[in-house]
Amino acid sequence: MSAEVSSHDYQIPSHCKAGVVVNEGPNFEVKVEMVPVPEPGPDDILIRLNITGICSSDLHMMQGDLGTPPMSTFGVRSPGHEGAGVVVKVGANVKNFKLGDRAGIKPLLDTCGTCDLCWGDKETYCPTAIHAGLMAPGTYQQYIVSPARYASPIPDGIPDEIAAPIMCSASTIYRSLTESGLNPGNWAVFPGGGGGVGIQGVQLAKAMGMRPVVVDAGESKRALALEMGAEVFVDFIETSDPAAAVIKATDGVGAHGVFVTAPAAYRTALSYVGNRIGAVVMCIGLGPTGAMTIGGDPNAFIFKNLTVKGTLVGSRKDTAAALDFARRGKLQQICEVYPIDRLPEAVEKLRKGQATGRMAVDFNK
Amino acid sequence: MSAEVSSHDYQIPSHCKAGVVVNEGPNFEVKVEMVPVPEPGPDDILIRLNITGICSSDLHMMQGDLGTPPMSTFGVRSPGHEGAGVVVKVGANVKNFKLGDRAGIKPLLDTCGTCDLCWGDKETYCPTAIHAGLMAPGTYQQYIVSPARYASPIPDGIPDEIAAPIMCSASTIYRSLTESGLNPGNWAVFPGGGGGVGIQGVQLAKAMGMRPVVVDAGESKRALALEMGAEVFVDFIETSDPAAAVIKATDGVGAHGVFVTAPAAYRTALSYVGNRIGAVVMCIGLGPTGAMTIGGDPNAFIFKNLTVKGTLVGSRKDTAAALDFARRGKLQQICEVYPIDRLPEAVEKLRKGQATGRMAVDFNK
Amino acid sequence: MSAEVSSHDYQIPSHCKAGVVVNEGPNFEVKVEMVPVPEPGPDDILIRLNITGICSSDLHMMQGDLGTPPMSTFGVRSPGHEGAGVVVKVGANVKNFKLGDRAGIKPLLDTCGTCDLCWGDKETYCPTAIHAGLMAPGTYQQYIVSPARYASPIPDGIPDEIAAPIMCSASTIYRSLTESGLNPGNWAVFPGGGGGVGIQGVQLAKAMGMRPVVVDAGESKRALALEMGAEVFVDFIETSDPAAAVIKATDGVGAHGVFVTAPAAYRTALSYVGNRIGAVVMCIGLGPTGAMTIGGDPNAFIFKNLTVKGTLVGSRKDTAAALDFARRGKLQQICEVYPIDRLPEAVEKLRKGQATGRMAVDFNK
Amino acid sequence: MSAEVSSHDYQIPSHCKAGVVVNEGPNFEVKVEMVPVPEPGPDDILIRLNITGICSSDLHMMQGDLGTPPMSTFGVRSPGHEGAGVVVKVGANVKNFKLGDRAGIKPLLDTCGTCDLCWGDKETYCPTAIHAGLMAPGTYQQYIVSPARYASPIPDGIPDEIAAPIMCSASTIYRSLTESGLNPGNWAVFPGGGGGVGIQGVQLAKAMGMRPVVVDAGESKRALALEMGAEVFVDFIETSDPAAAVIKATDGVGAHGVFVTAPAAYRTALSYVGNRIGAVVMCIGLGPTGAMTIGGDPNAFIFKNLTVKGTLVGSRKDTAAALDFARRGKLQQICEVYPIDRLPEAVEKLRKGQATGRMAVDFNK
Repeated sequence: MSAEVSSHDYQIPSHCKAGVVVNEGPNFEVKVEMVPVPEPGPDDILIRLNITGICSSDLHMMQGDLGTPPMSTFGVRSPGHEGAGVVVKVGANVKNFKLGDRAGIKPLLDTCGTCDLCWGDKETYCPTAIHAGLMAPGTYQQYIVSPARYASPIPDGIPDEIAAPIMCSASTIYRSLTESGLNPGNWAVFPGGGGGVGIQGVQLAKAMGMRPVVVDAGESKRALALEMGAEVFVDFIETSDPAAAVIKATDGVGAHGVFVTAPAAYRTALSYVGNRIGAVVMCIGLGPTGAMTIGGDPNAFIFKNLTVKGTLVGSRKDTAAALDFARRGKLQQICEVYPIDRLPEAVEKLRKGQATGRMAVDFNK
Repeated sequence: MSAEVSSHDYQIPSHCKAGVVVNEGPNFEVKVEMVPVPEPGPDDILIRLNITGICSSDLHMMQGDLGTPPMSTFGVRSPGHEGAGVVVKVGANVKNFKLGDRAGIKPLLDTCGTCDLCWGDKETYCPTAIHAGLMAPGTYQQYIVSPARYASPIPDGIPDEIAAPIMCSASTIYRSLTESGLNPGNWAVFPGGGGGVGIQGVQLAKAMGMRPVVVDAGESKRALALEMGAEVFVDFIETSDPAAAVIKATDGVGAHGVFVTAPAAYRTALSYVGNRIGAVVMCIGLGPTGAMTIGGDPNAFIFKNLTVKGTLVGSRKDTAAALDFARRGKLQQICEVYPIDRLPEAVEKLRKGQATGRMAVDFNK
Repeated sequence: MSAEVSSHDYQIPSHCKAGVVVNEGPNFEVKVEMVPVPEPGPDDILIRLNITGICSSDLHMMQGDLGTPPMSTFGVRSPGHEGAGVVVKVGANVKNFKLGDRAGIKPLLDTCGTCDLCWGDKETYCPTAIHAGLMAPGTYQQYIVSPARYASPIPDGIPDEIAAPIMCSASTIYRSLTESGLNPGNWAVFPGGGGGVGIQGVQLAKAMGMRPVVVDAGESKRALALEMGAEVFVDFIETSDPAAAVIKATDGVGAHGVFVTAPAAYRTALSYVGNRIGAVVMCIGLGPTGAMTIGGDPNAFIFKNLTVKGTLVGSRKDTAAALDFARRGKLQQICEVYPIDRLPEAVEKLRKGQATGRMAVDFNK
Repeated sequence: MSAEVSSHDYQIPSHCKAGVVVNEGPNFEVKVEMVPVPEPGPDDILIRLNITGICSSDLHMMQGDLGTPPMSTFGVRSPGHEGAGVVVKVGANVKNFKLGDRAGIKPLLDTCGTCDLCWGDKETYCPTAIHAGLMAPGTYQQYIVSPARYASPIPDGIPDEIAAPIMCSASTIYRSLTESGLNPGNWAVFPGGGGGVGIQGVQLAKAMGMRPVVVDAGESKRALALEMGAEVFVDFIETSDPAAAVIKATDGVGAHGVFVTAPAAYRTALSYVGNRIGAVVMCIGLGPTGAMTIGGDPNAFIFKNLTVKGTLVGSRKDTAAALDFARRGKLQQICEVYPIDRLPEAVEKLRKGQATGRMAVDFNK
């Protein structure tokens, strides 16, 4: 019961549009349906999303190949974990949001808040965290309930189509960039950096004083990468030896950091460090469990002072930091925006690896 | 010419004992011979060693399986890179050592001092560093020349048989412990920790407030490990599931850090982190190139915030820090000391994997 | 209303004993009275305290000289912010505590949990934090309500009289020790280190591998300091030049870190760093606003790479870390325990500067 | 003797121009004279400077008010510690420079290279460091001898008039920026930031992703500051409450970091942090010993988690990093360049506080 919830300013419908999965598994499909608008509890807010991003992790959720239980286990039909909208209903106990505030949904809908991981800067690894779009309805559904404590406020001055992909992709790569320990002036190489997460990384790396290099394929990705701040683009199809090209471009030594957002890039990621002492290779992109490997001869780790490290999604603090870069104009719109009724088409495009930058869906179109 | 070298206090013989390699390669042997005492240049010191440690890397140098050129390429016959002795001759330009000072030899005999790696805290990765016992005669030779700038002063109060193994093993593992970023109170697991490097790590980890766990085999290693400060010893032969035992011992979660000093342990190193978020696996032990691998599924790196990192030997600063722990009684003698004439026997014992702790040779016995 | 609160296992009285302030201000007094037992809300727990510590900050709260509004502003009569007890009633929404769990109260009773300071590792600076014993009834009252999210679980194996002072003093100094950036082997100097916070610092510094030095006065403090792990005790009354004595003891160079827990020590704190390059002076002890100063000639900061830094109380994570050291036997009982009826006498003793170590009150005696 | 020195490509005169101090002390004067060209030893290089910067520290050296012994104690008449030129003679042992290489002189001409400060990242605090322009002839003299090990290589693509001020001012402020621990996106406030060191800081802070704010006076400084990357300029003469203006500009909270390059600014430096938790105030600018103070009430340090820290000049590594930013076009020419014969006039202008940006002298004009 939520008698104390106030919502006088907003007309809340009984049903809303949602992209839902059909035939969960390798041959899944996505359909757009009308679903009931959920009711927030006393500690929750109800957000009317304007935009949801489409992330390749959504495909993995629907395919069920990440080693997590299927969405249906949790009674969830809508994936999606990056959304931006407005607060239309506020639970009685909520102090940090009010009606009309802008709010965003991140990959984690909530964490327990009281374990030692939540106390520190590791909240995203909370073992009882609730994953949006897996354990609770995700951002493919227009009206979404979120615990107020974990939703992210969105500052003025950032359009929703820029804010939404920040919730996952920019926040995630921001976390990786900060945990990499790279310094301003260092070379940050993004294999597969023309994709949705990578291109946010390029922009953030540049804003943080690093020197981005993108390794990807095709003219549209080259153009996008260079426009977004890459100093160098290496086309791995046109270039006979991409690693040599990267090493040459990075002062002839090699990358200080390699940020792997595309699963296919793990295989060659270590080659980009060349002879750079103290380089780090950061694992970001999730892929089918068991189909990839990262690592190599320990002697090489020792002789090069090499690090391989993984990071998961961004915390509330990381998300706020990424949003602040956006507020200052450092993150531009990198997504192709589809109207909600064409969501299935957008998902197909991503599935086929045809997306450049990020993809998003506008619920109002 | 070194007319300005003063040596009035010490009788320097024309020849001295040295362990030299015969038949370099997989079937090498070691013999003890008399070799000429070398002459220091104006920036050098001549050290009369009392003790040399015997390191498993020495075996690799003589076997030539680390991917480096053979010792003979450099005209070198004596391996060895950890020695402690006294300065018996001082070059004319030397200011930081005087006759009678105690001095030690580390894995690196010198670095260039003027590259960007030398300027920072990465001097041990200097591309023109001179490796003792490979590119210049090593500490298996009693009288050894060292650039004064790179020799390590040994403070009073540390016996030579404790100081010598610090030059490589303790200094190397100290570097790894500090680069791991572990905090006091954290669990530090040492697979193969009953060996020469590992047991120094156990002592240092304890002195740094960490909680050491050793995974190794046999009663003598168990006794040594527990005596040197391990809180837990897991016998990987007697225990059906060593990883489960380590995880259980480390609060049921897993290691904060795993320090791999034995090449055979890379295969299972990642299993000890269990579900510890943010754990680090440090690569220290060099082995035959191409025969080992470290790494795994990137998803696991991502979900666990896992790090794998390698570090090489300790710098001058690391060595001084390790010596300071020894001066305060935190590093005990862990080596079996053989007289110089039994050096070949000691090398054989190490070769057969029969050594517990570190092995050393006394030139005065 | 709290119909869903379960409390069948515990008999909860209507009233309990509490130390309350009379005549708040410079001439305050403390009396023991019976006060109503409060009722927890749905997100709260009710703790029956066994022990409360007595902190010099309590005196400042009752004197009202820290620049904060008086306790009476908030309708609060009982100070106190470090207590250990057992959970006797649990709000309906609470998941992280159950009846019978051990729990502790820290200087902050709660924080907002949703500001950028709470998101990071700065939660203790949350501008809307609720200070126990100032803005809400403190631990001088036996039965106390706490938001479940912010109470600290106390692990088995730590007696309440050890756990209680950890909530403030050990947690606070642990935070300072970690923010100081000192490394194992470094000299940590505690002026006024024979007092309640300092002596916890000595124990923790030792457990973290640092080398504690205490500067204080009198034989009882000397004995306590040395027993708790100080390597050196400098009596500032008996020693003509305490700074010279500290510098001599710290390898003739000076302290790596100075931890100022006693307001009177700010005046001389910088003298203990001697010529140590990169030393840090940590401000911990609060005193009357305007009566103290820390700092000096910027040239000295520059030539010595000197840092002066302040830290407030410990976070939930810091408290858990300090408790873990206690669980491992690294923090011993340092408090004189008075029965509750003699609380006023204990407060007087602290007021007169006659306390050695920490003082505490047992509600069951 | 330096028979082994090769210099066939360069005509080296017997005498060269030099700015020399007359009447060292508060009423010093500077004259330009011909002085003998010095001879490099076997480990040295001879540099023919094209440009020397003029630093306010030079005035302090000639005034003798920094607490150091007078220049005349060392037989030195020419101050100056930032110069850029070309190597015209190379000692026999030198490996890291060859004839014709570009090289720069920093505030330290040399360090011992073998103390524990030199081993780490604290080389600039080496107690036996040789200060250029104090203990050895400085860069006001066209031909200058430097130990090869400590001279800084200057990469191609940086004009000498940009490189010279980097040797001291940019390198020094780079060190302060990195030791401050500020992150990209943080507010960096530069009181007196229109001066020579501050304006380098503004450029570097911007290149490192920080947000620079300058507090200084006058239109020329405003214009320079904004051109060089300051987001905000606060004129402390025109603004009634400069601290309030800074706090307002920095999101209404206050500076993350304050970088004090002008001695007069220490008095108000702490006011710029406002209510920013965890802010740092960095001391960079040296002034008359005893005439300044930094610090305040320890309660404020504690409640704000405030840090005050000092840093001295940049190391070889810092200088290389600053030069790399210049090579990438991130440091522009900020100096007014005088011909050598007008050096005395330039010094006077700086003495009167009339300089905007940095001042320099061209030996070839």
